[in-house]
Amino acid sequence: MGLLIVGSIALDNIETPFDKVEGALGGSSVYISLAASYFTGPISVVGVVGDDFPPQHIKMLEDHNIDLEGLQIVEGAKTFRYGCRYHYDLNVRDSLFTELNVFEKFNPAIPNKSKKNSFIVLGNIAPQLQLDVLNQLENPKFVVCDTMNFWIERTKEDLIKVLKRVNVLIINDSEARLLSKEPNLIKAARIISEMGPQYLIIKKGEHGALLFGENTIFAVPAYPMENIFDPTGAGDAFAGGFTGYLHKNRELSFDNLKRAVVFGSVMASFCVEKFSTKGLENLSLLEIHNRFIGFRDLSNFS
Amino acid sequence: MGLLIVGSIALDNIETPFDKVEGALGGSSVYISLAASYFTGPISVVGVVGDDFPPQHIKMLEDHNIDLEGLQIVEGAKTFRYGCRYHYDLNVRDSLFTELNVFEKFNPAIPNKSKKNSFIVLGNIAPQLQLDVLNQLENPKFVVCDTMNFWIERTKEDLIKVLKRVNVLIINDSEARLLSKEPNLIKAARIISEMGPQYLIIKKGEHGALLFGENTIFAVPAYPMENIFDPTGAGDAFAGGFTGYLHKNRELSFDNLKRAVVFGSVMASFCVEKFSTKGLENLSLLEIHNRFIGFRDLSNFS
Repeated sequence: MGLLIVGSIALDNIETPFDKVEGALGGSSVYISLAASYFTGPISVVGVVGDDFPPQHIKMLEDHNIDLEGLQIVEGAKTFRYGCRYHYDLNVRDSLFTELNVFEKFNPAIPNKSKKNSFIVLGNIAPQLQLDVLNQLENPKFVVCDTMNFWIERTKEDLIKVLKRVNVLIINDSEARLLSKEPNLIKAARIISEMGPQYLIIKKGEHGALLFGENTIFAVPAYPMENIFDPTGAGDAFAGGFTGYLHKNRELSFDNLKRAVVFGSVMASFCVEKFSTKGLENLSLLEIHNRFIGFRDLSNFS
Repeated sequence: MGLLIVGSIALDNIETPFDKVEGALGGSSVYISLAASYFTGPISVVGVVGDDFPPQHIKMLEDHNIDLEGLQIVEGAKTFRYGCRYHYDLNVRDSLFTELNVFEKFNPAIPNKSKKNSFIVLGNIAPQLQLDVLNQLENPKFVVCDTMNFWIERTKEDLIKVLKRVNVLIINDSEARLLSKEPNLIKAARIISEMGPQYLIIKKGEHGALLFGENTIFAVPAYPMENIFDPTGAGDAFAGGFTGYLHKNRELSFDNLKRAVVFGSVMASFCVEKFSTKGLENLSLLEIHNRFIGFRDLSNFS
């Protein structure tokens, strides 16, 4: 059974205090699938682009054994474009523009062969689209879901329906507080878990991440980095590393979920070291393994 | 050899969204010595109070085997008093008043028997006083030092002199950024380490703490707490647990420093569960051990 990933595909303009790029490859399903590709396969991506989407991006994804049969290329239309500027404090960013283009009418059509995929990542898209995807699948075994403030504020009812059908929700701390209306993260996690997801992961940026489930909590710190060049896609890289690792060995014990959270953190740390998807394009398994060991040395004691 | 603790002794007015107390026992050396008392002895405290200082506080400290020979009681004068109000976000507090009283002319006089103490905690007092203390000691082996924004901003030159003579500096993240003039904590830690301290601990409140030294970093998460009643003294309880554990077994390997950081975090977590020093007054060794195990379960993976 393959791993199915549904989300956005974008061309991003990104400015940080260090550099800027225009029309760089981006989008949640791109980051998720690239990160997952180091752990498992086959990976199928469902998404949409315009005919302006550069062929070299398609080639790069295919070189990572990512199956693009589910990629719709709309003739005469433009790819989703997003621009943002990060502040000196890279936790803060201003959106500069959002051109939905082909994404506005995106209607995810799951290829027949992917409908039986047991592992699915629902990237950060409208909850109604996430429901549409779930409704096309035959008895999914493990559903990982991302969302964001925008959907929590505007389409909370749809989101609540999604949450009843997911195994893992991955959100950041401010989204957890918004969704639960509770400032204390531990209480917030309890409230959100009661909405449906079997496991909850709260990402805390430079402070790491928390995994909640089975009445237990696991905390992983962020990797200590002196230079973060571009935070774009870090959360998606986390989701990809997390799900890719679980999909590879199919063991859903809490101990294995802990390891998956660490591999998610590993991929997020590589992601932010370079602009756009560059940090995820040319990794070796040894680099990934060594950083996993780095996380272990960082946080384990006896 | 005993453990010497020098710092403030105070009567605090504390308001939180949950409760308020007036004239409660406080001050850095009180929290430090109480937390350390569960690990080691003899502990000597050097400080000053007025004749308004309630005798039951002295009895409580002595019941924890804390030696108060170095406590100066100034007749006809008042104890240092401090008032603050915490916001709903307990990371934010407003100072309501600061009455230095006897603390204004505090001149720490180390009793002869304590001058040979090899382990010393310099609580958060003026760097010039910390230097005065160090100058009275005979060849201290392990010096742990706290400071705060106030001293970094006003008496940085004195503080730099102190840092050249300490083994461990314990500060919080905003203080680390202020002292180093560097927003990235990893870079900040390198800059501060070059100022002298062999080890640096950066406390991050609800995000745990980082230990830097020997070209290595150790990260401990904060204990997941649904209810924090009073953050006052948490940093001092951390320093007390950290130093008390190290003083007990005298092993200064990095692995043991990691355990000490966890025991510091354990004592900070107990501290904030009740108002004032109440969370540190009646602990059992079993409770402390169990919470240490709780921290291990929270962060270890393999």
